[in-house]
Amino acid sequence: MRAEVITIGDELLIGQVVDTNSAWIAQKLNEQGIELYQITSVHDSREHIIAALDEAFGRVDVVLTTGGLGPTKDDITKHVLCEYFGTHLIEDARVRAHVERLYADRPDVLNRLTATQWMVPERAEILENRVGSAPLMVFHKDGKILASMPGVPYEMKIAMEEQILPYIGRTTASIIHKTLQVNGISESALAILLEEYENSMPSSLHLAYLPKDGIIRLRLSAYGDCSEAEMAQWFERLKELTADYLVAETDEPLEMVLGRLLTARHQTIATAESCTGGKLASLLSKHPGSSAFYFGSIVSYDNSVKEQLLSVPQEMIQTHGVVSEEVVKVMASTVRKQIGADFAIATSGIAGPTGGSEAKPVGTVWIGWSTPTETYAECFHLGKLREQITDRACIKALVKMIKIVRESK
Amino acid sequence: MRAEVITIGDELLIGQVVDTNSAWIAQKLNEQGIELYQITSVHDSREHIIAALDEAFGRVDVVLTTGGLGPTKDDITKHVLCEYFGTHLIEDARVRAHVERLYADRPDVLNRLTATQWMVPERAEILENRVGSAPLMVFHKDGKILASMPGVPYEMKIAMEEQILPYIGRTTASIIHKTLQVNGISESALAILLEEYENSMPSSLHLAYLPKDGIIRLRLSAYGDCSEAEMAQWFERLKELTADYLVAETDEPLEMVLGRLLTARHQTIATAESCTGGKLASLLSKHPGSSAFYFGSIVSYDNSVKEQLLSVPQEMIQTHGVVSEEVVKVMASTVRKQIGADFAIATSGIAGPTGGSEAKPVGTVWIGWSTPTETYAECFHLGKLREQITDRACIKALVKMIKIVRESK
Repeated sequence: MRAEVITIGDELLIGQVVDTNSAWIAQKLNEQGIELYQITSVHDSREHIIAALDEAFGRVDVVLTTGGLGPTKDDITKHVLCEYFGTHLIEDARVRAHVERLYADRPDVLNRLTATQWMVPERAEILENRVGSAPLMVFHKDGKILASMPGVPYEMKIAMEEQILPYIGRTTASIIHKTLQVNGISESALAILLEEYENSMPSSLHLAYLPKDGIIRLRLSAYGDCSEAEMAQWFERLKELTADYLVAETDEPLEMVLGRLLTARHQTIATAESCTGGKLASLLSKHPGSSAFYFGSIVSYDNSVKEQLLSVPQEMIQTHGVVSEEVVKVMASTVRKQIGADFAIATSGIAGPTGGSEAKPVGTVWIGWSTPTETYAECFHLGKLREQITDRACIKALVKMIKIVRESK
Repeated sequence: MRAEVITIGDELLIGQVVDTNSAWIAQKLNEQGIELYQITSVHDSREHIIAALDEAFGRVDVVLTTGGLGPTKDDITKHVLCEYFGTHLIEDARVRAHVERLYADRPDVLNRLTATQWMVPERAEILENRVGSAPLMVFHKDGKILASMPGVPYEMKIAMEEQILPYIGRTTASIIHKTLQVNGISESALAILLEEYENSMPSSLHLAYLPKDGIIRLRLSAYGDCSEAEMAQWFERLKELTADYLVAETDEPLEMVLGRLLTARHQTIATAESCTGGKLASLLSKHPGSSAFYFGSIVSYDNSVKEQLLSVPQEMIQTHGVVSEEVVKVMASTVRKQIGADFAIATSGIAGPTGGSEAKPVGTVWIGWSTPTETYAECFHLGKLREQITDRACIKALVKMIKIVRESK
């Protein structure tokens, strides 16, 4: 079974909003063995939506649309779907009761515009949108399905998980993806290392290289004929071949890999951040269960904070500069003791666009790692763009921390 | 002039990667007065790419593709473009010299796979990819243009800005967008407030509502006939009508609005974060120039850190719980003094999925704001999903901080 996602909204096409819905939907469809064949983003325009629907029904069996279901004038999806499927709007008592209940304590919302939300296409099946006022609509056409969902990510997610996915049902086709992450080898060198392996793969298997910020994710995908056992064997072989560079045996974000490792060992970590400005803290606290291993961070964006809260001597900053081996080592070991964690990471660098010098250009980042027995530091040059520099610094910090924890007793 | 972006890569369609490139390209095209008509994401598949190219050339004048240009077997874009435009690969001496220079100190990268990067389509114009090995290719067809760029975001951005956009050239058509942000009113109530305004707008103007996490962005767009002066008048009127709810007169992220305000007043801010775990710090340090107003954060994810570094008395936590008015007030006022900033924000909440109780369910967040003269706190219920809760907490924290700073002397 093949699906297409059509995201509807001018905001996507002027770049005001990044479409994160499609990637999330893609994951969910794949988990159910449904191939997402195409993602198409179109304007809030009658002609454009109709053309996209026609094309999509020519390609796939299931069309999922998001967006354009609000009560305001710019949202036209429901009207266009009515026209496309040759039907008209009628009042739906269940939707009305739901919306009235939803906004029972907000009379300012229960006005005549919101009342348009309980007008639904006569020929659509209406599924419950538990958390919002826009009805979920399912249309049928020549044995194919179209489901329309709101564009607000959390409403869409609940709609997909509770209503749309169960509706589409589990299909028999299977797609399995397994991913591992490597570091310390170039994409082309890795491809040469794996050349014989790739050439001997059956045609139902496919290997993809996804390099980003110094990590290469290797994704092995099995379509159709390949059994789970066979897939597992090929994945094992891939792990063996890349053992020297292996960072993670899953597609999980590195902070999650580190978190699992620490949780299993009943160990904890703290951070002291300058150039990464809280990004490491934010990553380490992002996932459920992070309080088991993550204690906290001192974000010392201003030098005064480094001196007062992280005991970095003023003379040290004057002599070596704030972006230096000496300073990150003190930051790392102080925060580890201050916060009482087993491990700590510290960062100090020049994220730009200003602040660079000939000796320490923009992109220079010192990272320190502290353990109960040792403190290490390493200098990196991580590019020229602010966001890239801080993202890469987090990855470098996490990759080495994972290795240090793995190798520590 | 109309454009379409075709992003190529299986990783997009299995949801392994969120497509952030398209939104960025959309912004750049709009700035140049080029309408981005559609975004299409397709597989690394010959048939799929060719079908997408055919459809796109039927809709638009400029087709921009990203992705599929790596040296590995799964990257096929260059070969498919050769086939589509009826040409073949030849060695390009300039590209070869560039790639050899790029990897001069990395002999492990300069292998036979990397050497395929200097093979280019004979009938394409080759533009310089200053930061990567994949050549930028421009093809012409019936007066229309196709430009092919790498999918790696920072390579794509440099390619767009330095090569592709100047190549496409500035067109005469103009699109202007102006956005303001409001808070404290529902979308439908806002639409009723603006009904007369919207109905009296000329057809060259368009108003869109973009609600997210309690903020509604109102985007006014002028196409074609509307002069800049006329647009400015309509935007002024919009500001007047929404004055009671206005948070920002631009589309800038809230942390940037707050940063500009503080920088102009030579004031500074610090944060103490529990449930937001560094997300506020990360936002406040994200943009260039943030060191002028942002001092740092104490991320007290574990309670021991609240007691030791933020002077929250143990008895207070025992009596009121860590998610309480008392605790966030102490966190906010302590961090303000500790770090020596003018203002401070503190957060403590239950981000879930575990840790909720009947009295304090998942989603309960206390936020504290401290100024040189006062400390405030407020309790919010921000939904059920971890990421949504922490994102919304940051927005609530920033909205009120902006108001407090604006109203303070």
